[in-house]
Amino acid sequence: MRIGIDLGGTNTVVCLCKEDGSLLDKTRLPTRTGQPAQMQADMKQMALSLCQKQGVNPNEVTQIGIGVPGSFDKQTATLTFGTNLGMNNVCFAHAFQPEFRCPVRMDNDANCAALGETIAGAGRSCRHTVMVTLGTGVGGGIVIDGKLYTGCNDVAGEIGHMVIVAGGRPCNCGRRGCLESYASATGLIHLAEDALEGRTDSLLCTMRDQNGGKLTAKMVCDARDQGDPVASQVFEQYCMYLGCGLVSFVNILQPDRIILGGGVAGYGEKLLAPLREIIARESFKGVHKNTELVQALLGNDAGLIGAAML
Amino acid sequence: MRIGIDLGGTNTVVCLCKEDGSLLDKTRLPTRTGQPAQMQADMKQMALSLCQKQGVNPNEVTQIGIGVPGSFDKQTATLTFGTNLGMNNVCFAHAFQPEFRCPVRMDNDANCAALGETIAGAGRSCRHTVMVTLGTGVGGGIVIDGKLYTGCNDVAGEIGHMVIVAGGRPCNCGRRGCLESYASATGLIHLAEDALEGRTDSLLCTMRDQNGGKLTAKMVCDARDQGDPVASQVFEQYCMYLGCGLVSFVNILQPDRIILGGGVAGYGEKLLAPLREIIARESFKGVHKNTELVQALLGNDAGLIGAAML
Repeated sequence: MRIGIDLGGTNTVVCLCKEDGSLLDKTRLPTRTGQPAQMQADMKQMALSLCQKQGVNPNEVTQIGIGVPGSFDKQTATLTFGTNLGMNNVCFAHAFQPEFRCPVRMDNDANCAALGETIAGAGRSCRHTVMVTLGTGVGGGIVIDGKLYTGCNDVAGEIGHMVIVAGGRPCNCGRRGCLESYASATGLIHLAEDALEGRTDSLLCTMRDQNGGKLTAKMVCDARDQGDPVASQVFEQYCMYLGCGLVSFVNILQPDRIILGGGVAGYGEKLLAPLREIIARESFKGVHKNTELVQALLGNDAGLIGAAML
Repeated sequence: MRIGIDLGGTNTVVCLCKEDGSLLDKTRLPTRTGQPAQMQADMKQMALSLCQKQGVNPNEVTQIGIGVPGSFDKQTATLTFGTNLGMNNVCFAHAFQPEFRCPVRMDNDANCAALGETIAGAGRSCRHTVMVTLGTGVGGGIVIDGKLYTGCNDVAGEIGHMVIVAGGRPCNCGRRGCLESYASATGLIHLAEDALEGRTDSLLCTMRDQNGGKLTAKMVCDARDQGDPVASQVFEQYCMYLGCGLVSFVNILQPDRIILGGGVAGYGEKLLAPLREIIARESFKGVHKNTELVQALLGNDAGLIGAAML
């Protein structure tokens, strides 16, 4: 048995998993941000409750894994820098003792999602996968030979911070022109804002104005579905940028599958189909096999299961 | 004992290696392009001569590896498409029988160089390395956990074909704005040609004119060494593009080392120092360790040793 924890800025979710990654049960509580001792106590209590409910002796738990939003030191299971959690340098290695005596592992939430999808979701039975999460930013994770690949220093897989437009749009990471600046939900909104500059004749304008002047990624998809030419053009541009990044991942890593997750991936086949065309047209191809592009299957459970399986 | 072969469009080099990758002896012959049977006979003869010279019984050879310039099918050790060799669909699996009975492996020359440098050169004792070869194109190879990483279909590691300028300069691969289009020796020449457009007042112009109007990458380095401001500006631009690609490799893969090889890397520390600054400034960093940038050590032997160690 394993415990997986998705430590978020809003909620903390704790799950109990079998050794093969199948989810038995989960529970959630609001995260007590800025209160590390209370937050750790909550986590332990949730883990104990799950065990009790499922008739599992805490001694049977072989590993506790935590997915965190921020910087961490894997070797000591320490959250070194957790802006959204309002706490730095919190060590979790002993937080579950004395009831649980197993090792505590830690990785970032995007990596956990990549591992979870590979073990139990859209990348099942694959050796090599790349997960690309299209949310506020572009998160990601790389699984090689069925294991999370984290490089020489545990921070590999920052695939959103591959530059696709040298000198382009400023990115939060300090570089310019990162994939994240164009292919995140935020990037899609920026593309739409640029396209609407000085226009009033588009359905997308009307939607924005009805929402108090605020554009969302979903509006672009909805307006495109209703035939709005501006939204269609913005969407095409978005696919060009995202496709550009995906083709580079194929050329570099040739994973069995690239798994698209996050809010924008909810647009489903309408997003995947044009991206597959770009990949087929532009990427290096093998003799026997090529990278497939698929949609994530597990939603928020991916990070939870992945944490359990670290 | 192992045999490594670097099958080039001009010469074929065959070596004898120990199991740890140390080179014992090597020999070379011009490649008989367009004549697959003769070429295979030459290879076998060179391998047999090396064994005889070193007192090695061909039965002691545990593996023969061939680095090829072109497309191949690893599973059948077949060169599927070898433009520079004037031959397609040539199978090497049985080319060394009956004298040698060991398996014959194959990979592309850039991958072999990456493996060779990692086992016996600038990446020695590293777990994860990325080799970037700056020649006519930008070749590359990825070593993960000490083994060549070739993805789901044996064509991973095409790191020269990561786009850094979406919609930019056309690349031979069919995409636009690939790293290769900017960071290869050819890319450096293009940057210099653009900078010299309409100018006659630069040392670089004089050098070009004295060479029958033909610029080379070395001229840019030489003119910069002599204080030519145009060459300095071109070189700075080149470092910006190459650095952009290297930082992305760090963010994605966080290898222990990035190894720069190929002609342009011969400029040594004068190239590496500014690139290290860009990497330090722009890349994601770990708590304990970060990616080092180093120059390749083995020259052409890298591909030969890597082939032996496939």
